Amino acid sequence: MVTNLEHIGIAVRDLAASNDLFTKLLNVPPYKAEAVEAEGVTTSFFRVNQTKIELLEATSPDSPIAKFLDKKGEGIHHLAFEVDDIAAEMKRLAAEGFTVLNETPKRGADNKWVCFLHPKGTNGVLVELCQEIKE
Amino acid sequence: MVTNLEHIGIAVRDLAASNDLFTKLLNVPPYKAEAVEAEGVTTSFFRVNQTKIELLEATSPDSPIAKFLDKKGEGIHHLAFEVDDIAAEMKRLAAEGFTVLNETPKRGADNKWVCFLHPKGTNGVLVELCQEIKE
Repeated sequence: MVTNLEHIGIAVRDLAASNDLFTKLLNVPPYKAEAVEAEGVTTSFFRVNQTKIELLEATSPDSPIAKFLDKKGEGIHHLAFEVDDIAAEMKRLAAEGFTVLNETPKRGADNKWVCFLHPKGTNGVLVELCQEIKE
Repeated sequence: MVTNLEHIGIAVRDLAASNDLFTKLLNVPPYKAEAVEAEGVTTSFFRVNQTKIELLEATSPDSPIAKFLDKKGEGIHHLAFEVDDIAAEMKRLAAEGFTVLNETPKRGADNKWVCFLHPKGTNGVLVELCQEIKE
């Protein structure tokens, strides 16, 4: 079950400058920064009620974020929906015809299991499903 | 003050088909549809916890949504933040250097006063501020 819009990922070229910009926009500073080496990104998080804004800066030219910036420029990169059972949702959505981009959940930022749906099947929106890792 | 991510606007070519798609994705149907003639759009709303997903279909070729679809294709069109005092936020953000696209709040969908910030000043993200109309 989809329980919340957990965060919105925004691709930026200069994380320090964008941190300043979103601090002015939201009138609150980011509450944490985190590198996700496997994805080649450094991230920064702002909280707005029950949803987070995640700014993503590429740390290598092979990063998916670097490719997105080259192709589309800065802007919204993905929407992440929190689910209560990520494996069950991946199965349900695959059965509904969505293209689930990884076979099993992988570790993402912010202590989450994540998986992505191909934007060709979701009106051009890159959709992430996420569930908190409890170990 | 920004109090919530009120909704995310997604531009779609075929509202009926996209209603089906998002009903499958979120596993809930839209809870309402609404035409906004001044903007040349028909909208459809889904609820995910405290945030709404607003699908936008153009009803005329002059609609901002028709222009967006021509230029960028289907995808996320804007983020709307709920504020407690839209006039005060417009003034604060203009003073911070953001380009506020209307001088006074205008009537938008879902019984809201709205205004937009130019995406060139917000990392490529079209930002809407909104506040419920209380009359």
